[in-house]
Amino acid sequence: MEIAGESGDSVYLRGFGDYERSSLKLTAAEQAGVGHIAYRTHSVEALGRRVDALEAGGVEGGWLEGDLGHGPAYSFLDPDGHRFELYYESERYEAPPELRPALKNQPQRYPGRGAGVRHLDHVNFLAVDPGENRVFCEAHLGLRLTEQIVLDDGTEAGVWLTAGQKSYDVTYTRDLTRTRGRLHHIAFFVDQREDVLRAADIFLEHGIVMEGGPHKHAIQQTFFLYVYEPGGNRVEVANAGARLILAPDWKPIVWTEEERKKGQAWGLKTIESFHTHGTPPVS
Amino acid sequence: MEIAGESGDSVYLRGFGDYERSSLKLTAAEQAGVGHIAYRTHSVEALGRRVDALEAGGVEGGWLEGDLGHGPAYSFLDPDGHRFELYYESERYEAPPELRPALKNQPQRYPGRGAGVRHLDHVNFLAVDPGENRVFCEAHLGLRLTEQIVLDDGTEAGVWLTAGQKSYDVTYTRDLTRTRGRLHHIAFFVDQREDVLRAADIFLEHGIVMEGGPHKHAIQQTFFLYVYEPGGNRVEVANAGARLILAPDWKPIVWTEEERKKGQAWGLKTIESFHTHGTPPVS
Amino acid sequence: MEIAGESGDSVYLRGFGDYERSSLKLTAAEQAGVGHIAYRTHSVEALGRRVDALEAGGVEGGWLEGDLGHGPAYSFLDPDGHRFELYYESERYEAPPELRPALKNQPQRYPGRGAGVRHLDHVNFLAVDPGENRVFCEAHLGLRLTEQIVLDDGTEAGVWLTAGQKSYDVTYTRDLTRTRGRLHHIAFFVDQREDVLRAADIFLEHGIVMEGGPHKHAIQQTFFLYVYEPGGNRVEVANAGARLILAPDWKPIVWTEEERKKGQAWGLKTIESFHTHGTPPVS
Amino acid sequence: MEIAGESGDSVYLRGFGDYERSSLKLTAAEQAGVGHIAYRTHSVEALGRRVDALEAGGVEGGWLEGDLGHGPAYSFLDPDGHRFELYYESERYEAPPELRPALKNQPQRYPGRGAGVRHLDHVNFLAVDPGENRVFCEAHLGLRLTEQIVLDDGTEAGVWLTAGQKSYDVTYTRDLTRTRGRLHHIAFFVDQREDVLRAADIFLEHGIVMEGGPHKHAIQQTFFLYVYEPGGNRVEVANAGARLILAPDWKPIVWTEEERKKGQAWGLKTIESFHTHGTPPVS
Repeated sequence: MEIAGESGDSVYLRGFGDYERSSLKLTAAEQAGVGHIAYRTHSVEALGRRVDALEAGGVEGGWLEGDLGHGPAYSFLDPDGHRFELYYESERYEAPPELRPALKNQPQRYPGRGAGVRHLDHVNFLAVDPGENRVFCEAHLGLRLTEQIVLDDGTEAGVWLTAGQKSYDVTYTRDLTRTRGRLHHIAFFVDQREDVLRAADIFLEHGIVMEGGPHKHAIQQTFFLYVYEPGGNRVEVANAGARLILAPDWKPIVWTEEERKKGQAWGLKTIESFHTHGTPPVS
Repeated sequence: MEIAGESGDSVYLRGFGDYERSSLKLTAAEQAGVGHIAYRTHSVEALGRRVDALEAGGVEGGWLEGDLGHGPAYSFLDPDGHRFELYYESERYEAPPELRPALKNQPQRYPGRGAGVRHLDHVNFLAVDPGENRVFCEAHLGLRLTEQIVLDDGTEAGVWLTAGQKSYDVTYTRDLTRTRGRLHHIAFFVDQREDVLRAADIFLEHGIVMEGGPHKHAIQQTFFLYVYEPGGNRVEVANAGARLILAPDWKPIVWTEEERKKGQAWGLKTIESFHTHGTPPVS
Repeated sequence: MEIAGESGDSVYLRGFGDYERSSLKLTAAEQAGVGHIAYRTHSVEALGRRVDALEAGGVEGGWLEGDLGHGPAYSFLDPDGHRFELYYESERYEAPPELRPALKNQPQRYPGRGAGVRHLDHVNFLAVDPGENRVFCEAHLGLRLTEQIVLDDGTEAGVWLTAGQKSYDVTYTRDLTRTRGRLHHIAFFVDQREDVLRAADIFLEHGIVMEGGPHKHAIQQTFFLYVYEPGGNRVEVANAGARLILAPDWKPIVWTEEERKKGQAWGLKTIESFHTHGTPPVS
Repeated sequence: MEIAGESGDSVYLRGFGDYERSSLKLTAAEQAGVGHIAYRTHSVEALGRRVDALEAGGVEGGWLEGDLGHGPAYSFLDPDGHRFELYYESERYEAPPELRPALKNQPQRYPGRGAGVRHLDHVNFLAVDPGENRVFCEAHLGLRLTEQIVLDDGTEAGVWLTAGQKSYDVTYTRDLTRTRGRLHHIAFFVDQREDVLRAADIFLEHGIVMEGGPHKHAIQQTFFLYVYEPGGNRVEVANAGARLILAPDWKPIVWTEEERKKGQAWGLKTIESFHTHGTPPVS
């Protein structure tokens, strides 16, 4: 996926556990925000089927030639205006000699410094209406809803969707500023909760703004820490333990307005900025 | 799955994170060992397709009416003689009032005692020829090979297979006693590596034999602890951090005879009993 | 030490790592609060020296015959009105057969359930003037100040004192209700930060009110979780990693009013109830 | 303390939690081994008392002018021939601007890379007769014995001693090669057991030889990992949780020959090299 930063050429980042050639592209821009999110399909045929489904559904899109690390991509917008890409051809990462791992089942050496994130885990978009985006993702992308917040008036205030057995990889939550196309946060996974606590100490030492956490979400039970990267985008460092969605007939968990008032799992109240801070910032 | 113990009627166990009605059935028997392993298919149609594939492949099997927690199952043997079942209809676990969880996205209250395992994670069979069982699982069950040990003479000494995005859920390793149909171990997943260390202290206090670990496997990088349950079956308490196989074109990792001589990830040599102790015991 | 609960006879509790016969005495009372805190002296002679110092300092006190697990005790009040006892003779805990540990250097079997606290760690009193109590503890009890909060007007808003190499074992913080003799909290130590997180899940499942945390204090860097026990007293579950005060010429760390505005180490703001909730409650 | 390496001038190291100016001095030498261990006394007067006690006991020693970070030191040998120093005057470490910590109660910024050791924890000497060194340390240095191994013939095979409330800071274990003055290992403390596991991954990636662990010692219950630094000295990365010796009348724990045959806490057998590998190496 692509995140806009403040200056400079595009830079590509990976977690040390990502086998793909690049997982995060940082691009110079005047404002923070998200450029696009790209999903890799299961096969060339699956890519074709998805594009057919999108076009049959009246979604306008177009082909791009590719990007660093992946081949041709079909580009389109979700109802809220976030750009998605779908691609299949992907370049497998080969570590240079100095970054070769001791264990051959790991793409890159464990870095031994910084937060040591293993891989990009999920993206959380802000949306004026999470529900319409949920319908879009289910209908055209084949994603499954695993959890959601439904307010007393029926509004879907948040939806968590997955393309596989992880409990979620894309999330939409309400943008109370009613601005379209914004990013709430991207999340990186670390191996243990202790790694989240350790990351907090590193952020503290480097003056990184910690917005909330470490704490445990009630929804999806993710152990989380939210920070703002220097360009302004919110980044989550997360660990979800052994949580996987294995049941093929999983019934989405529905959280009510009343239940959400309890805050996070261990009692932390939701931070005020959580429903308004997004990127690009609203002037 | 079903494990044979020494006495009494069948008992059903679950991890607190299992949504299925039962995940482990303990049945009275004269000897320790594995009764069967059951896979749930993705749908009724998928169950039909698997049975067709098995019958087309000349595998003899038959239908069972079901068991506690699941409906009709097709039962057959793998080439080494372990019994498999496939089923789709499953009863969703509903916790009794005293075991209802505080968070509704969890099937049962966190127990707060013992090892606190979340779910049954995988089964490791012993086999005279892991390779022929690997071919069988790929051909008839649609499992994917993720890692394997191939000796210098081409023998497959161990194979790790998965039905989804977990890095493995069934494993075959060589039975050096050349006995068929034995169990190496079953594994339960805990949320954090610290839970494995804590389990070690609990086993210590209760005189449970710890055969090896806690340590980290080189293969699959699982943090493990092996114990013998009182009936004699080997049980693993495991955590694999954030490890998932997400690439649809994953290339199996092949470990050579030379590489395996290094032992486990952090240098622990493989325990002698690891290649001979299985259940039922060999007289 | 002695904590007042709502009903029943006195009950004695220990962490599994306490070698003393009892560390916490729960006594029936109409209101929650602290009965007394008892320090064990280094020797009979040291006990005599402390009593001499107290009497020379004009502190009124008297001898008690003893209590479950310890011998004669000298009882007196600190300037804020909390009762202290000093004793030397102590009964060494001997575990009954069913609680004997596997390792002989541990007084009792690791319980394997609940929060699994190892020992009573410290007590935090509320006081109208922490500074006068700090002077008292230094002068008469030989405690050392390790950290303190000094407001812009010179008021000591909090003081952390130790009798040994732990970084603190008694603390006084301001009671903004200006009531004397109240308890802020008692703290139990667990071996790892993961044990604090695990305790949070157990508290969640049992409806225990979590007032704040898990988070890391800036002062003393303790990883903490505050809960209210059913009787109303605040209890902390804590881990301080490897932190010890080894320098004989340690200079107390002084936190300013400005510095305290930053909240806890990772940004959590101090909870409002933290400066007013104490026991007995103020009507 | 001073460790001999293979080449170069002396280098000084500290854990990020050490307030002393330097805690480990690496000095060029032809062979690996320990130069000396230095204890800081509680006061100038205490230093005088120790020197008087040593001289009254017939121990030959002499004064050194000091070293980087500390003042005048009295130097002498233990019965096995290891050099000790005692000093009081010590230079308090002041971090340069780029290493200043975010929290003022910590001497240096958390490094965020490598094993992240907090402080030098203890030293383990090899000795022909641990018992005579135990008597020496008790008589002349005021150390307390906390645990020991006593063989069936009465030989003390290992002794663990402390100068304060840590459960040990110096240890002697038998040198089965019957060489005098050798080092078994030095140990660094990390805050959590997870840090030991993380260190193991870092050592793995950098080809550092791991001799044993991570595992938990039965004696002192330390969670440990032993490695050989490139010069050949054995180094331990350790965490002991909340373990402190608070009882003034602590009775040393005595482990028998039979009990030691059980190996480490969770069943790991003691590594063969553990009783023979020391530095300098025996040719």
